[in-house]
Amino acid sequence: MSLLVTGSIGLDTLETPAGRREQVVGGSAIYFSYAASFFTPVRLVGVVGEDYPKHLFSLFEGREVDASGIEIRKGSKTFRWHGSYLENLNEAVTVEVDLNVLAERAPKIPENFLDSKFVFLANTHPVLQQQMLASLRSPKLIVADTMNLWIQTERPELCKLLTKIHGLVLNDGEARLLTEEKNLISAAQQVLKMGPRFVVIKKGEHGCLLYSDRGAFVLPAFPTAAVIDPTGAGDSFAGGMMGYLSTQGGITSAATLKRALAYGTVVASYTIADFSLDGLQRADRDQIDDRWHDFKTAMSF
Amino acid sequence: MSLLVTGSIGLDTLETPAGRREQVVGGSAIYFSYAASFFTPVRLVGVVGEDYPKHLFSLFEGREVDASGIEIRKGSKTFRWHGSYLENLNEAVTVEVDLNVLAERAPKIPENFLDSKFVFLANTHPVLQQQMLASLRSPKLIVADTMNLWIQTERPELCKLLTKIHGLVLNDGEARLLTEEKNLISAAQQVLKMGPRFVVIKKGEHGCLLYSDRGAFVLPAFPTAAVIDPTGAGDSFAGGMMGYLSTQGGITSAATLKRALAYGTVVASYTIADFSLDGLQRADRDQIDDRWHDFKTAMSF
Repeated sequence: MSLLVTGSIGLDTLETPAGRREQVVGGSAIYFSYAASFFTPVRLVGVVGEDYPKHLFSLFEGREVDASGIEIRKGSKTFRWHGSYLENLNEAVTVEVDLNVLAERAPKIPENFLDSKFVFLANTHPVLQQQMLASLRSPKLIVADTMNLWIQTERPELCKLLTKIHGLVLNDGEARLLTEEKNLISAAQQVLKMGPRFVVIKKGEHGCLLYSDRGAFVLPAFPTAAVIDPTGAGDSFAGGMMGYLSTQGGITSAATLKRALAYGTVVASYTIADFSLDGLQRADRDQIDDRWHDFKTAMSF
Repeated sequence: MSLLVTGSIGLDTLETPAGRREQVVGGSAIYFSYAASFFTPVRLVGVVGEDYPKHLFSLFEGREVDASGIEIRKGSKTFRWHGSYLENLNEAVTVEVDLNVLAERAPKIPENFLDSKFVFLANTHPVLQQQMLASLRSPKLIVADTMNLWIQTERPELCKLLTKIHGLVLNDGEARLLTEEKNLISAAQQVLKMGPRFVVIKKGEHGCLLYSDRGAFVLPAFPTAAVIDPTGAGDSFAGGMMGYLSTQGGITSAATLKRALAYGTVVASYTIADFSLDGLQRADRDQIDDRWHDFKTAMSF
């Protein structure tokens, strides 16, 4: 069943200890779509400016990503982000950001996407997230991401969104900010009181924490020395997780969620092994499954 | 088979968000011994001053800890540490430290301890660690801990020690300092080149990483909201790990080490649930085994 994602599409300039890349393809919806399409067909909704390089549209060639929901807006410029990991490979410093078209109205969800059952609302303004959600006919599993900015400036709208979704994905700093709890288990418990049935707290190189009414599940990151560029790791993680959940009919039992988190973890390990989408582009589903089984074996005791 | 530990015994003053305790029992050898004695008889070697409160000697009553290796040195004062976790529950700030008797000569290992097969050299000067090791007749499994201070000031002696031990336990910051590698897998690989067959890198609330020639094994911390006082978590972890390894005849296969790390993780979860040794003192082996099985189930996918 099709998985709908709405989120950012951008051009990234990246600095890491391994080198520098200028104006390469990036954005939450791009990483998510590529990662999820290892598992299930993806419907991508986003907006770019008319300056978006044409050759980048070939990114999804041969993959089950329906990019017809990408609006190329005349007179607008594409979102740009310049991030540096020179200080800390686990956390980007934003050197420069130009929201450009992302600061304008949201893209429209195409009519033929409105029956999507599985939905990932990548990070954007919570009012836009609610609008996009409201236009869908009968979503079965809705998961959202958010960020510090909205927690700080749009808390009432974010709280409204939280009552309408099944799962929230956010990082540890955001979870602490949202709940004012330092301990992540306590933070996760608070998030559940706000609406979602489950929450996934991403901890970068330290893995992730799942919390639901069935309790906590913690998973370390895939152990690897090959970290070239962490950009998109969280979105790839979410893509792998939601892609797998979509293949399971959106079931969110503890066992299914755990397997989904492990898939997210494994897919993210390909993302960080190279700049931009280069690492993901070299992966295939068989490799992902092999690594998933290796991870499962390594994690069992 | 008996497990020998040499390390510090002290009086701690502790400040955490949950409160403050003055001059309570602490020290690496104390936490280690209590934790390991859930699994195996422990021989404890350490030194205190004549000011050490008599009632604290009853700590190990009814437990298989042979405390006859504790020297009460006349004219000397007990080691004292004052730590605060008010800023960061994952890392203590040392408010004050008085090495006192720890700055003097090492305690002597009793004659009847010299046949110990399993040895944990808790953190102290690497020359003392080597001296104590040299006096043992035929140790079968030797694991050591160390700290920033010795990495910075006694690197040649520490490097000598590393060629004489089977396993090294240290925290993430220490591993990075020792190897000048930021990535922990790379750091672990460098440690193996220095001598040990395996290394365990402790990451506090983020769990631990085991690395050996069989590759990496990562384990998150036991997920809990009940963190009152993290003091002794690392030493309790080492105690649980070494205690279990001792019951397995010191086998260090990947499977055995993984189970041992999980025991260390579970034992540490009792330590942090209260001040000083209070949490550990309320635990028993059945509870530990139950929690170990819960952890194993929670971790499998």
